[in-house]
Amino acid sequence: MIVVMQTSARERNIEQVVALLQERGLTPHLSRGMERAVIGVLGPVGPTGVPHALPSITPELGEMLEALEGVEAVLPVSKPYKLASREFHPEPTVVRIPSPAGDVLVGGEAVVIMAGPCTVEGEEQLLTAARAARAGGAAILRGGAYKPSTSPYGFRGMGEDGLKLLAWARAETGLPVVTEVMTPADVELVSAYADILQIGARNMQNYYLLDEVGNARRPVLLKRGLAATIEEWLLAAEYILARGNPNVILCERGIRTFERLTRNTVDINAVPLVKQLSHLPVIVDPSQGTGKRSLVSAVALAAVAAGADGLIVEIHPHPDAALKDGAQSLTLEQYATLMPRLRAVAAAVGRSVGDAVFV
Amino acid sequence: MIVVMQTSARERNIEQVVALLQERGLTPHLSRGMERAVIGVLGPVGPTGVPHALPSITPELGEMLEALEGVEAVLPVSKPYKLASREFHPEPTVVRIPSPAGDVLVGGEAVVIMAGPCTVEGEEQLLTAARAARAGGAAILRGGAYKPSTSPYGFRGMGEDGLKLLAWARAETGLPVVTEVMTPADVELVSAYADILQIGARNMQNYYLLDEVGNARRPVLLKRGLAATIEEWLLAAEYILARGNPNVILCERGIRTFERLTRNTVDINAVPLVKQLSHLPVIVDPSQGTGKRSLVSAVALAAVAAGADGLIVEIHPHPDAALKDGAQSLTLEQYATLMPRLRAVAAAVGRSVGDAVFV
Amino acid sequence: MIVVMQTSARERNIEQVVALLQERGLTPHLSRGMERAVIGVLGPVGPTGVPHALPSITPELGEMLEALEGVEAVLPVSKPYKLASREFHPEPTVVRIPSPAGDVLVGGEAVVIMAGPCTVEGEEQLLTAARAARAGGAAILRGGAYKPSTSPYGFRGMGEDGLKLLAWARAETGLPVVTEVMTPADVELVSAYADILQIGARNMQNYYLLDEVGNARRPVLLKRGLAATIEEWLLAAEYILARGNPNVILCERGIRTFERLTRNTVDINAVPLVKQLSHLPVIVDPSQGTGKRSLVSAVALAAVAAGADGLIVEIHPHPDAALKDGAQSLTLEQYATLMPRLRAVAAAVGRSVGDAVFV
Amino acid sequence: MIVVMQTSARERNIEQVVALLQERGLTPHLSRGMERAVIGVLGPVGPTGVPHALPSITPELGEMLEALEGVEAVLPVSKPYKLASREFHPEPTVVRIPSPAGDVLVGGEAVVIMAGPCTVEGEEQLLTAARAARAGGAAILRGGAYKPSTSPYGFRGMGEDGLKLLAWARAETGLPVVTEVMTPADVELVSAYADILQIGARNMQNYYLLDEVGNARRPVLLKRGLAATIEEWLLAAEYILARGNPNVILCERGIRTFERLTRNTVDINAVPLVKQLSHLPVIVDPSQGTGKRSLVSAVALAAVAAGADGLIVEIHPHPDAALKDGAQSLTLEQYATLMPRLRAVAAAVGRSVGDAVFV
Repeated sequence: MIVVMQTSARERNIEQVVALLQERGLTPHLSRGMERAVIGVLGPVGPTGVPHALPSITPELGEMLEALEGVEAVLPVSKPYKLASREFHPEPTVVRIPSPAGDVLVGGEAVVIMAGPCTVEGEEQLLTAARAARAGGAAILRGGAYKPSTSPYGFRGMGEDGLKLLAWARAETGLPVVTEVMTPADVELVSAYADILQIGARNMQNYYLLDEVGNARRPVLLKRGLAATIEEWLLAAEYILARGNPNVILCERGIRTFERLTRNTVDINAVPLVKQLSHLPVIVDPSQGTGKRSLVSAVALAAVAAGADGLIVEIHPHPDAALKDGAQSLTLEQYATLMPRLRAVAAAVGRSVGDAVFV
Repeated sequence: MIVVMQTSARERNIEQVVALLQERGLTPHLSRGMERAVIGVLGPVGPTGVPHALPSITPELGEMLEALEGVEAVLPVSKPYKLASREFHPEPTVVRIPSPAGDVLVGGEAVVIMAGPCTVEGEEQLLTAARAARAGGAAILRGGAYKPSTSPYGFRGMGEDGLKLLAWARAETGLPVVTEVMTPADVELVSAYADILQIGARNMQNYYLLDEVGNARRPVLLKRGLAATIEEWLLAAEYILARGNPNVILCERGIRTFERLTRNTVDINAVPLVKQLSHLPVIVDPSQGTGKRSLVSAVALAAVAAGADGLIVEIHPHPDAALKDGAQSLTLEQYATLMPRLRAVAAAVGRSVGDAVFV
Repeated sequence: MIVVMQTSARERNIEQVVALLQERGLTPHLSRGMERAVIGVLGPVGPTGVPHALPSITPELGEMLEALEGVEAVLPVSKPYKLASREFHPEPTVVRIPSPAGDVLVGGEAVVIMAGPCTVEGEEQLLTAARAARAGGAAILRGGAYKPSTSPYGFRGMGEDGLKLLAWARAETGLPVVTEVMTPADVELVSAYADILQIGARNMQNYYLLDEVGNARRPVLLKRGLAATIEEWLLAAEYILARGNPNVILCERGIRTFERLTRNTVDINAVPLVKQLSHLPVIVDPSQGTGKRSLVSAVALAAVAAGADGLIVEIHPHPDAALKDGAQSLTLEQYATLMPRLRAVAAAVGRSVGDAVFV
Repeated sequence: MIVVMQTSARERNIEQVVALLQERGLTPHLSRGMERAVIGVLGPVGPTGVPHALPSITPELGEMLEALEGVEAVLPVSKPYKLASREFHPEPTVVRIPSPAGDVLVGGEAVVIMAGPCTVEGEEQLLTAARAARAGGAAILRGGAYKPSTSPYGFRGMGEDGLKLLAWARAETGLPVVTEVMTPADVELVSAYADILQIGARNMQNYYLLDEVGNARRPVLLKRGLAATIEEWLLAAEYILARGNPNVILCERGIRTFERLTRNTVDINAVPLVKQLSHLPVIVDPSQGTGKRSLVSAVALAAVAAGADGLIVEIHPHPDAALKDGAQSLTLEQYATLMPRLRAVAAAVGRSVGDAVFV
């Protein structure tokens, strides 16, 4: 941590910074330049694995120093996340999803495709989509039983009935299931049906929910928030890891920008960057990330080329009759056409697509 | 709702749109131009006050139409919120906060100042701040007992002990209390202590929490999300209103932009715009909105000049020792200096500052 | 164009809109709904190829209508660009860059790689980079002689001396040259040396410069502005096309977002979207688009997978001694490693990389 | 400047950084922490007033260091602008605009109102607006003769004929004139007619234009770019100052954000922040900043309350017939109503509105 003093700072301002740091058992290094002084403190940030305590260097220390008179800025040097950081965990994490037909590994050599309808709407819709997902080579079935709706008058999902349909589709196809959980009180229920708990973009900083899925036994798919920086995203993962759940899959799903022709802007830079900063697997959601069916395939191919460990893609037997997000769902035909192209691009970057194994 | 067809759309694409609309009991108006066809449907969006139902025109209808072949875009005509809209509720809502010394009215002639520490840290800190808040003319005491922390290693507040201190400070000063509630399970507990339930920016689209405070009897202070459009913000208010709680106060607290020298960018345009779009009162948080103590007073004055119905301001007896957000907290002296300036600006725009009445 | 009236609009407001449209020879279609009226006008926007005139439907008509009392919003139906639109020019444009060793085609089957140093610094640096560029398979040499510098104290390029070096490197390697022109007065001079005129992101809306390169005989590489919407970018291309220069290559180079760990955010969605909206070729700049050498290769591969017609990549013999942008320049070794991977991805999506032909 | 090394950096990486700094005559301070090393260099950035040279510490040094192996990040300590900085020029700059009726001072005690039509359209329109501007108390007349148009088919202004009308309106009313210049070649011509040269938002980083107005004798109104950070804005001012023109007025005119209901988002935080960072006067453009007539007055009042030194406001005798931007122009009646309210708010913050003196 580097404390940059104002050019107009007085001697007593510098002394106050030094004193605060010493009080906390830290060793400040003072450098005086022609224009201003800077005070460096090196050391780890935060007590790894000891949440809620107040050790000598806390996440709040920077804020405290910034509040002092004569301080221009506080520049962080260390990363604020530890468990999620590749600096302290150089080997990649491979998240194992148990499956009767052979476990699915996310973060390994194989690119994992998660496909299915945005929203579970009924038996036939789900099963048709699930069978097509498997036939195309997806290894995981996606489908929403609890849906965030911007409007209170919108459809909010089938709830537990939807979860039951997902479990039934899993039994029929052998595909493990990823589905969203939206509130701490539902984590236990959703865990009873789902193989992967999805945290949606709107809930990326719902800390009570992060705590709760951190306590759960299930792998977690953590979507990046609409306006979350990569650092905030990794700190959200840190919440889950700090509770003892190491199985976190990160999902880039587009960020909010000024561009109006697409629903979101897929941050493709984030794919290689997060792979460098963290050992956690990273997948991409080209459906939410674009909001337009005509862009999904191109962005899916780009994500795999950029090094994504997987994709989560919306497919629907009749997108023009979908209750939600039909405009961004691939038809089953488009999906069937996409999959061999994904395999070709994966091979070009030295990976395979990890097909579902038939049970 | 206007359905714009692609220039390359075929006759059967147009027929499919028309058929879908007719199926739902709607009357499409087809216009054929030189380049393309457009199909208009006029009518209300969504069943006001009947959440979760699926009426003929639902929030999802636009998505369905967008998913059809040959459709270029769907342009909404009606606003997606009804209860929050000034179109159907022309008179301003005045939210009444009961208080032994005389109820506080938010949204009336008087500008209401809510002041207090970012975080409740202890007896002395809170009471000193609360007394200064009242002495300066604030009508409401703010203070966080449950705190969102970006890092899992950060301070997350005193919890119920903090709520008890707030209740005690209310008893000492006569100021009603606003404090944040972060998860549905805590709404009952926080309601037992607080006069206004605050929904933080990170939770603006935590729909289960919105439902729960919609069911509660307490007024709600709804902060705008970091990357929420004004329309999404009003739809979040609509969630609360649709549950039967009419007492919603909107709070602009800065949005996330590319600018790096300030924590957030206060959207001052939003103040008059939301007053025009909605009948709900709007206040501004210049502390979170700037993140810098040296900017708080200027932005507070600007907010009142722009027509805000109130302010929520962080003050601290010793900001340089604050556990959180000291850098954006006013000292008690700065606050005491600001209040007469706020009164002068309020008077200049034809309003007063509604002082706390001593008990 | 659809004029949406306010719910509170009066009869005379509607009449005023209708009258203004009729005055201009247009035929308004009025629909009255339960809540409000809307007035549609179908027809082309603007006189294709007749800039500066004021025909019946002008770009300003929407602004005029929005200014009328009782008007809530004006929704455009037609696209504001014509010459750049694929609607009226379904076949893709292939831009031909003459070269002694065989012309380079941008927008055809082959993906075109443009490589070279960010800035021309001297003979040896340029020639070493140019030879490596050709050896790796690049078809075009890039290099900046005129450089935008955010600071007035920064290096602004070698100017005409740099142009001469570029011409000499072209003679040595046979690679045509792309280089930036920053002001209208320099277009003639730069055209004397360059094969492609580059318009930088900061100049995307420098209309006098667009006019001037529109008058020039050289192909133009038009970078997207830092905060330019896709529509504004295509309108900038329209400026050049409207002057009679059909040879415009679009270049996505990252947009400005809230993310702070990367210099820019490459809008990968823009690649397939612009290909759908326009017939012009689209390339990607992964160097500017990321600002970090460690991300360049992954994003380059992604761009080709997404359908980009080419790449413009910064390479430098000694990036750690580069005068500008060394942190985002690939070493010659990294570039040599990237090229076969680009070929593999290009092949996976059914394209080749159009190698330079040795002279 | 602080060079933060990666945790995985080797000894030779550190040595390379130290060597590069020593080579340039700088004194590096190396600190080794538990996790990583950091190397500090204190000293001024760039040779004040000596543009285009390459001194020991250049704006590019940070980029060079970032390009070295083992370097994680380079954190700037000093501000990159000097002439524009308040650190080295504590007293506020007051820009004097000569006028026969008494010079207008921008940046002094009085708030200066610049009013007039967006675009000069003709004699009657301009003179009516100019007379109303003066009658209401504006001290400067605004009006565009050269207009940026997003579309090549849009109106680009009356050109020199518009300048002549402005000069004539100045003669009639005694109000000095501010008008935009868009390209270096026009600076001399526009200077012959205008009292203040306006640089529009799209040209904030048109460095050749900045150089040229820096060489001119006229005061310059420098609008903030659509996506320009405050630092980039001050660096653009530095370009002008470095050429020897000290008379720069900064103008906040709204930035581009994700919000779609307003054309731009006025960054009200920027007003007090820029006043702290720089000695230059700052004004606000509530017309461009909001894009909606109904918001202009509220934001104008807010700007004055926040400490702006002036406003630039669009007014039009018949906004519903305006060729450009009618929807954001105040009617003359609205303007006449606004002015006394502005005076009241100015008085409330201890300032006056500097009325035009009748000649």
